[in-house]
Amino acid sequence: MTGNILGERFVVVSFGESHGKCVGAVIDGCPAGLPITQEEIQRELDLRKPGQSLVTTMRMEGDRVEVLSGVFEDFTTGAPICLIIRNADIDSKSYEKILGTPRPGHADYTALEKYRGFADYRGGGRFSGRITASYVMAGAIAKKLLKHVLNVEIIAYTMEIGGVRAGPFTLEDARTYRYSNEVRSPNPESAELMKKKILEEKAKGDSVGGVVECIALNVPIGVGEPVFSSLDSELSKAVLSIPAVKGVEFGAGFEAGRRRGSENNDQYVVENSQIRTITNNSGGILGGLSNGMPIQFRVAFKPAASIGKVQKTVNVTTMEETDIVVPGRHDPSVVPRAVPVVENVTALVLADLAIRGGLIPPVLGEKTTLRKIPQ
Amino acid sequence: MTGNILGERFVVVSFGESHGKCVGAVIDGCPAGLPITQEEIQRELDLRKPGQSLVTTMRMEGDRVEVLSGVFEDFTTGAPICLIIRNADIDSKSYEKILGTPRPGHADYTALEKYRGFADYRGGGRFSGRITASYVMAGAIAKKLLKHVLNVEIIAYTMEIGGVRAGPFTLEDARTYRYSNEVRSPNPESAELMKKKILEEKAKGDSVGGVVECIALNVPIGVGEPVFSSLDSELSKAVLSIPAVKGVEFGAGFEAGRRRGSENNDQYVVENSQIRTITNNSGGILGGLSNGMPIQFRVAFKPAASIGKVQKTVNVTTMEETDIVVPGRHDPSVVPRAVPVVENVTALVLADLAIRGGLIPPVLGEKTTLRKIPQ
Amino acid sequence: MTGNILGERFVVVSFGESHGKCVGAVIDGCPAGLPITQEEIQRELDLRKPGQSLVTTMRMEGDRVEVLSGVFEDFTTGAPICLIIRNADIDSKSYEKILGTPRPGHADYTALEKYRGFADYRGGGRFSGRITASYVMAGAIAKKLLKHVLNVEIIAYTMEIGGVRAGPFTLEDARTYRYSNEVRSPNPESAELMKKKILEEKAKGDSVGGVVECIALNVPIGVGEPVFSSLDSELSKAVLSIPAVKGVEFGAGFEAGRRRGSENNDQYVVENSQIRTITNNSGGILGGLSNGMPIQFRVAFKPAASIGKVQKTVNVTTMEETDIVVPGRHDPSVVPRAVPVVENVTALVLADLAIRGGLIPPVLGEKTTLRKIPQ
Amino acid sequence: MTGNILGERFVVVSFGESHGKCVGAVIDGCPAGLPITQEEIQRELDLRKPGQSLVTTMRMEGDRVEVLSGVFEDFTTGAPICLIIRNADIDSKSYEKILGTPRPGHADYTALEKYRGFADYRGGGRFSGRITASYVMAGAIAKKLLKHVLNVEIIAYTMEIGGVRAGPFTLEDARTYRYSNEVRSPNPESAELMKKKILEEKAKGDSVGGVVECIALNVPIGVGEPVFSSLDSELSKAVLSIPAVKGVEFGAGFEAGRRRGSENNDQYVVENSQIRTITNNSGGILGGLSNGMPIQFRVAFKPAASIGKVQKTVNVTTMEETDIVVPGRHDPSVVPRAVPVVENVTALVLADLAIRGGLIPPVLGEKTTLRKIPQ
Repeated sequence: MTGNILGERFVVVSFGESHGKCVGAVIDGCPAGLPITQEEIQRELDLRKPGQSLVTTMRMEGDRVEVLSGVFEDFTTGAPICLIIRNADIDSKSYEKILGTPRPGHADYTALEKYRGFADYRGGGRFSGRITASYVMAGAIAKKLLKHVLNVEIIAYTMEIGGVRAGPFTLEDARTYRYSNEVRSPNPESAELMKKKILEEKAKGDSVGGVVECIALNVPIGVGEPVFSSLDSELSKAVLSIPAVKGVEFGAGFEAGRRRGSENNDQYVVENSQIRTITNNSGGILGGLSNGMPIQFRVAFKPAASIGKVQKTVNVTTMEETDIVVPGRHDPSVVPRAVPVVENVTALVLADLAIRGGLIPPVLGEKTTLRKIPQ
Repeated sequence: MTGNILGERFVVVSFGESHGKCVGAVIDGCPAGLPITQEEIQRELDLRKPGQSLVTTMRMEGDRVEVLSGVFEDFTTGAPICLIIRNADIDSKSYEKILGTPRPGHADYTALEKYRGFADYRGGGRFSGRITASYVMAGAIAKKLLKHVLNVEIIAYTMEIGGVRAGPFTLEDARTYRYSNEVRSPNPESAELMKKKILEEKAKGDSVGGVVECIALNVPIGVGEPVFSSLDSELSKAVLSIPAVKGVEFGAGFEAGRRRGSENNDQYVVENSQIRTITNNSGGILGGLSNGMPIQFRVAFKPAASIGKVQKTVNVTTMEETDIVVPGRHDPSVVPRAVPVVENVTALVLADLAIRGGLIPPVLGEKTTLRKIPQ
Repeated sequence: MTGNILGERFVVVSFGESHGKCVGAVIDGCPAGLPITQEEIQRELDLRKPGQSLVTTMRMEGDRVEVLSGVFEDFTTGAPICLIIRNADIDSKSYEKILGTPRPGHADYTALEKYRGFADYRGGGRFSGRITASYVMAGAIAKKLLKHVLNVEIIAYTMEIGGVRAGPFTLEDARTYRYSNEVRSPNPESAELMKKKILEEKAKGDSVGGVVECIALNVPIGVGEPVFSSLDSELSKAVLSIPAVKGVEFGAGFEAGRRRGSENNDQYVVENSQIRTITNNSGGILGGLSNGMPIQFRVAFKPAASIGKVQKTVNVTTMEETDIVVPGRHDPSVVPRAVPVVENVTALVLADLAIRGGLIPPVLGEKTTLRKIPQ
Repeated sequence: MTGNILGERFVVVSFGESHGKCVGAVIDGCPAGLPITQEEIQRELDLRKPGQSLVTTMRMEGDRVEVLSGVFEDFTTGAPICLIIRNADIDSKSYEKILGTPRPGHADYTALEKYRGFADYRGGGRFSGRITASYVMAGAIAKKLLKHVLNVEIIAYTMEIGGVRAGPFTLEDARTYRYSNEVRSPNPESAELMKKKILEEKAKGDSVGGVVECIALNVPIGVGEPVFSSLDSELSKAVLSIPAVKGVEFGAGFEAGRRRGSENNDQYVVENSQIRTITNNSGGILGGLSNGMPIQFRVAFKPAASIGKVQKTVNVTTMEETDIVVPGRHDPSVVPRAVPVVENVTALVLADLAIRGGLIPPVLGEKTTLRKIPQ
């Protein structure tokens, strides 16, 4: 398969460019019979939308999802679902000006080389963070599917921004507070500190990175297809497809590399007649398969590449070194807006693997549901 | 596709079990005309082989590769290449005994649940580290292909074991020393400390985790297929398919999450008439595409799950809590043997993406090479 | 992969329904740098459009293609290309009425069972012939790509309709006349007879089947990927995805089953310093690979299922036998409109296999084509 | 995916060459818990084996299947199943002699061009009919799976050889007689005539083609994944992957192209409280989905390319025309041995689509089947 296609049974095809006509996704393989409304998709998109606060870019995106196919009378039909959001008219002039002088930290240079000048460079084209809107709209359907059939819940939040770590919090805090503050952090006090840090750096024309943590609850045991489509393999692939991500770790992650086996092994006990592990250093994944404990992983985001400071670059035509000041207004940190993106790509992976593992059937609802037939 | 298949154009199918008849791989999509000998494959396998020193398991594996198809007169033919190593006769009795009481940190419990008792449990079956021999034998061909066509060189080494980090080293040190010490570390003095640490923990019946770093040199610009088959996406997926891996990070990785954009962006300069970046915080990957700088990433390995200490587990039939002491001799750390595994899965991903990007043709050699035709 | 995705490197994703908002396709894997205009796509669509004459359905479809992504300044960018045509507002009432009583020869019954009433039944939904518009718009790009890079020409025409076979014709006749008569036949006199036959049966409320032949010229030697993606395998798969197709045969086809080897083998000669075969009973395919001769195959279409006559059916709710008269106006034969569809799916397969075989590079044009960079 | 891989969920990877070490297959995606013995696989292979009678080649192949992985205590484990048959030592000298002068009707010329002399030419290499042994061994498992879970029965037989058609027969005749005569025909008298015809042509150094018909019973309604993985699409692709096949038709097939809709439509009735069609002109497939009637299709085989007569060819090195007499003993008709091959590739397709459609679960047997756990 080609690069813009993710998954095997719940398949997402991403298309669209930052400054083109639209950003969209086709989902092929979504079971028939899933109740879904445009509003449910819009809700997820709205969480990703820019322009919501001081800490993210001021570009206003209307971003109303259109459902072009695959949904009929608010149920999925089993046919491919095409979703798009139109791009507003955007002035792309500034990108034309800097086209020959790649912006540090962006894909300008690699895209130019790979596609030999044919790629749509406006606003970063296919390499723009805006492309994640296609992940989110597809993920909204995956999320609904997982909730509807398996009661899976996915909760991501900002764990760290610009060196400020989230203070103590419970799962319930994360559930409650993550979308009630601008940085999407589960501890409201830390959220304030994070915001302060972002604004400080923004004022200096700089940007900050961070870490998003994601938890998935109620994932049945055995999700994952060894050996190459293991749950952690597929999650890694998907989150690394989010622009600006530079790393992923599961459970104890890199810290596990510093531990002894006797510290890191999760021992088994019986709790409420169910087998559980005392600790969850594995992040809920053993042998690439979910083990019934919460899936837990963290994703590292680099600081936004667009900064207000002067940077060195090269004119690719003349091969002369030169300076660049990146034009436009940008997110001082992509992390807050990345939170729903991480949730939704997690949903995409879990939906795909759940279907592959036979945990979600191709048609939801009993055969008696011939609801469309007039008696 | 199903879970035991990796790649799109240079495709690897892994098969075999730890205590079954063999471990093997089929490679489909290897270009015709690549010179390859059994010895070249054996050399990589030998680096992974256990029983080489005190710091790894004492199990002696003969592991002679057999080339069953796809190679003719020491050249690949364009047909699928099947490679196997036979398993020696192994006593699996001890596994039978502990079958109902899953070992902490292993896939016993998840495999039992997923396959409902049908999986081959002996020696961990498909979840054994021995399966990585199939990655290595396939990777040996990928490595040769990359070297032959693109002069790509892949160098992995132990960066950290049990909390002991490698001291300062150069690329040349890594090239020279990594396979000359038992822990596969580029700094010989650190290697001694690492070995000491491993033996200490081994003596206590414990194990240690670690971090492997991998560098790929001479990778052409533009390798990676946006947005879901980006270079970092596919590398992540592949390395997370190695048992015991719990995380991966590229370039500055998680550290980038703590930085400012002005610190983290790699600015461009001209060096020897070529565009280069001053720093390599991106790990050679921008927008999911290689940028001509060395590809650089780190992989976190948890401590080996098999330890000599008493651990808590549950009898899955009676649902009673019980204790387990894992039988058998095992690696106190998988990290040293994982070094060639990381190199070879990196080769698999690079070969696949290089073919997908048109950088390696389907037949090597000119048309005049009708070498088989008697005049 | 899922069912609405065709190809491996030149990938088409079909979406949309007959009476939904639109019919569309995403193409992922089209090389960057292909010059393409909306008009070129529209031209192919127009050939498929209904309402062009008495022999096809009177439903008027405006069918203006919209290019939503992947094309920038009239060149492909290497990003996925999304194409749609909007459906006009259509009265779907008549379909509601017959929903519980499946129409003979249509997919009503199988779709109802498979999707348990969730499928969009209006106008046949995903099973409508209208879906082939998505094949055609994607095929238009494939056709252009093949022509542009390899000078491949694809010519299909009606070989037989309702038992009337095309009289003698040359390749040049086929090229000239096939789109100049309503039945798309290469011999104008036979075309008249075919038209007469169709109108006769139409007058009786009946329909007719037929056979389309397709020829592809200038296909390089070696196209096809043994053993399962052989050229004939992939062409068969693709043409059988066209509604109403019931068979395909290559070269001598079923007739070859009645021949001796000495009659059927194509012997080799040298012509203009090139190896050619005297006959072309193989249809240009040997061992699943193109052999440099014209690719030639025939596709059998059943008579259109919608007829004006009373037919027996069953009420799926009450399980009582009943009669049905299919409402709506329909093509008395799908064959004329199927001609461009066959051409375009052939293009899809050839483009995909040509890329897989390394015959079309991922970017067209030299590196100097950094046309977008202002000096 | 690459060319030697078939299917999406029940995936077959074919490998091996005619005169190499072995021919084999890996099956990935076979559900765990299927009881299967080596003998069941061997039985299917034996039906394909040459040297069984005068009408097929005298080459004696021992062809004992070895199960290298994926089966444990006579049950599938859910892990990939590797199966091989070793090739006996075969003298390949004669092939060396004719290497530069391609045999008419064989893949010699196309393979030479595609792989530029690197392909293993001995005995036709990957293009040999012997490769179908890999289809059969994989198909044996698919057949067992379909029988075990869905009670599907697949019956193929010789419908026509060298122009001699099978006389009247019932389904029961086909079941009983097809493997009791050398030509695998359901009517014993016709079988005699067919045999006579074959021997006549053999005596003249010639060969004959034929037609195999295949029927699949008890296929549930709704098998097939619209629009490109429809049941007929996938069956076509698979059967066209059998060497020497030149066409496929479903139900009325090409004859449907000569019919009226009123003749060809299969009208619905109720039979034993089930919806059935009066006729089966659709071959059990509507809209690419099985409709509960028997799946029925015919496959055209060209006459064997290897004949004893002098034929014209070209020396590819000198580009001079020359004569060739194909050495070796060969099947005067591939049709009898193709009968089990058609059955088994049909099983492969049905198993794959049944799994994709959720009709076969990933693990067979209830969860209580933790049979391996000692109490």
